[in-house]
Amino acid sequence: MVKFTGNITKESIIDVYATVVKTATPIESCTVRDVELVAAQLWLVSPARAQLPLQIEDAARPEKSDDPEALKIRVNQDTRLDNRVLDLRTPANQAIFRLEAGVCKLFRDLLTQRGFVEIHTPKIISAASEGGANVFTVSYFKSSAYLAQSPQLYKQMAIAADFDKVFTVGAVFRAEDSNTHRHLTEFVGLDLEMSFKHHYHEVLYTIAGTLTDMFRGLRDQFAAEIATVGQQYRVEPFKFLDPPLRLEFPQAIQMLKEAGVTVGEEDDLSTPDEKLLGRLVRAKYDTDFYILDKYPLAVRPFYTMPDPNNPKVSNSYDMFMRGEEILSGAQRIHDPDFLTERAKHHGIDISKIAAYIESFRLGCPPHAGGGIGMERVVMLYLGLDNIRKTSMFPRDPKRVTP
Amino acid sequence: MVKFTGNITKESIIDVYATVVKTATPIESCTVRDVELVAAQLWLVSPARAQLPLQIEDAARPEKSDDPEALKIRVNQDTRLDNRVLDLRTPANQAIFRLEAGVCKLFRDLLTQRGFVEIHTPKIISAASEGGANVFTVSYFKSSAYLAQSPQLYKQMAIAADFDKVFTVGAVFRAEDSNTHRHLTEFVGLDLEMSFKHHYHEVLYTIAGTLTDMFRGLRDQFAAEIATVGQQYRVEPFKFLDPPLRLEFPQAIQMLKEAGVTVGEEDDLSTPDEKLLGRLVRAKYDTDFYILDKYPLAVRPFYTMPDPNNPKVSNSYDMFMRGEEILSGAQRIHDPDFLTERAKHHGIDISKIAAYIESFRLGCPPHAGGGIGMERVVMLYLGLDNIRKTSMFPRDPKRVTP
Repeated sequence: MVKFTGNITKESIIDVYATVVKTATPIESCTVRDVELVAAQLWLVSPARAQLPLQIEDAARPEKSDDPEALKIRVNQDTRLDNRVLDLRTPANQAIFRLEAGVCKLFRDLLTQRGFVEIHTPKIISAASEGGANVFTVSYFKSSAYLAQSPQLYKQMAIAADFDKVFTVGAVFRAEDSNTHRHLTEFVGLDLEMSFKHHYHEVLYTIAGTLTDMFRGLRDQFAAEIATVGQQYRVEPFKFLDPPLRLEFPQAIQMLKEAGVTVGEEDDLSTPDEKLLGRLVRAKYDTDFYILDKYPLAVRPFYTMPDPNNPKVSNSYDMFMRGEEILSGAQRIHDPDFLTERAKHHGIDISKIAAYIESFRLGCPPHAGGGIGMERVVMLYLGLDNIRKTSMFPRDPKRVTP
Repeated sequence: MVKFTGNITKESIIDVYATVVKTATPIESCTVRDVELVAAQLWLVSPARAQLPLQIEDAARPEKSDDPEALKIRVNQDTRLDNRVLDLRTPANQAIFRLEAGVCKLFRDLLTQRGFVEIHTPKIISAASEGGANVFTVSYFKSSAYLAQSPQLYKQMAIAADFDKVFTVGAVFRAEDSNTHRHLTEFVGLDLEMSFKHHYHEVLYTIAGTLTDMFRGLRDQFAAEIATVGQQYRVEPFKFLDPPLRLEFPQAIQMLKEAGVTVGEEDDLSTPDEKLLGRLVRAKYDTDFYILDKYPLAVRPFYTMPDPNNPKVSNSYDMFMRGEEILSGAQRIHDPDFLTERAKHHGIDISKIAAYIESFRLGCPPHAGGGIGMERVVMLYLGLDNIRKTSMFPRDPKRVTP
């Protein structure tokens, strides 16, 4: 049996029939030190091939270490992803995807408690939702269709159909040729939409409160997983305030100005500016999460509701984790004539969005919502450096396998 | 104000500021009879257009009635779906989609309690998973890709990657030109996969037990919704046994034979035979749910594990609700050489499934699983006659809108 056992390759699956026996002296090399197994039978259930494309020990090595020797053996990202079955066996990956399941569970449970109804929206759509750029085309029998870039229209239709508060978790597609650390061509959207009575801040604080409760739930329920990820990657605990911090756009501009960055009051923030702002907010308010409210109207999509008190400003918001955007949202225009006017102002061909506009001619309450990228939430909560670490089988412009 | 109010169109959204006043005599025409609102202000928030494409009262009429007059006004399925925002406002539709949210919640919660981990699998894939038929093609930058017909390969890879028990809820695509009451081109798959220790029945009974617990949860938590659906459609309560009934394929053949239907022992069941069998099982065992186990190997996909004791039989199963299949599942072959042999036997081009086969060369435990169509579960639990009633925005060969 010893010879047979000695020939079993690493990562093979075996069945062992054994007796648990108390050890005479503690075993130093194992976590369980006072008992050991005396094997009677050993079966090889599934052999792994002798030459593995990567070693689990190498894939599990700490990415940051004070010992330069420890950093010499690295498994690069593509090798990991090409051999994802092996790569996912590292303790950090086991922990990351268990925590990711927790993100979805918390999102859904917290919203269900708040009276939201889960819906499912189609991924195959007849018209490109946001103007036609960055959309994947699908051959659909003798015609063609598109893959939805967002469930937004369908969430809004559910609101118009009296569902009051809805959420949906599902695949979202972006045909964007962005090869960055934070873009995927397919990701999981955590989307929600809600009608409100008096002010869109009812929705803004519902979303932010849900996220804050989620951060707390992750911290309390996934402490072991967070610690495991921390053994490979230097994870800094995620800081958040309750109630969450809300800043208005001019405040952000002011903070950036004070830090020596010039941003126009009607310009959008660049990614480096967002990053810097995240650091400034962290230093001033001690939080990794905040809401940036009241974006300039000019930088938001046509369906965004303007601020009734200031036509240059909109009832829209982004939310940030560690200086990176994880949610974009707004009050939507629910008046079809005003929506038409705003679309024309943006130079949009009205005939292409006629169905969208028509859906507001059947009575629709004021509503707001937002969409969250699940993989970004997990990446930024843990402080990881690449979104491919939080997508089990990531898709980008260069990768559609495995 | 009376004139203004009189001009408000049906289905408009209004805000009313009013005082609640006790009525002198009970109001017969309302559910709340002892109080009424005395309006002080009335605001029109969102007017509906005067000519509605359908009346909610018509769309909500009972589909079955003893009074032939009541059946004269019908809103046909396409009119409903073309104007889905209005159609979804009927009490039955509000109830159907709330119960559907319950199906997903129960599925996930019951599996999470049993130690399953939720995963997310890509919808864009590089190769057609099951041979290439019935698959949608996507333009993918300068190349092309496909839409996943099932998350099966990815669930299996997650099992090989040590996740032990996994489930996923997400869109599944079938480019099948089937225009029936129970086929959609896009639906929500409730999929699960599980490694086992001794016998695939560990998995079979985990799935069936989860479904049985789900049926009980729906009955207990959604009694009001089920009653509401029952006011429009004649819903018969869904009957199930606990533990669930498991029949073996030869038993089904025997029951059909006794009912005068001839089926070959190595043939698959036709849809009418399945329906008949459902009625026979209902009559004999008083259950609308049962498992049909041990299908002939010849009628199952190449990756299905044969029965070790009978090479003509397989370790595979379907599950039925009211005589219609809702789940198809099996133990999968986890030995790459045997998988190759079986694929060749089925005349499959090995080069096209090389990646699939290779994923079992890294050590993989024995496992089994299955996939459930969410919309079918809701349709059959409620006893509805068309799957378009349980898909919020259904997709079929002729419909990609709204």
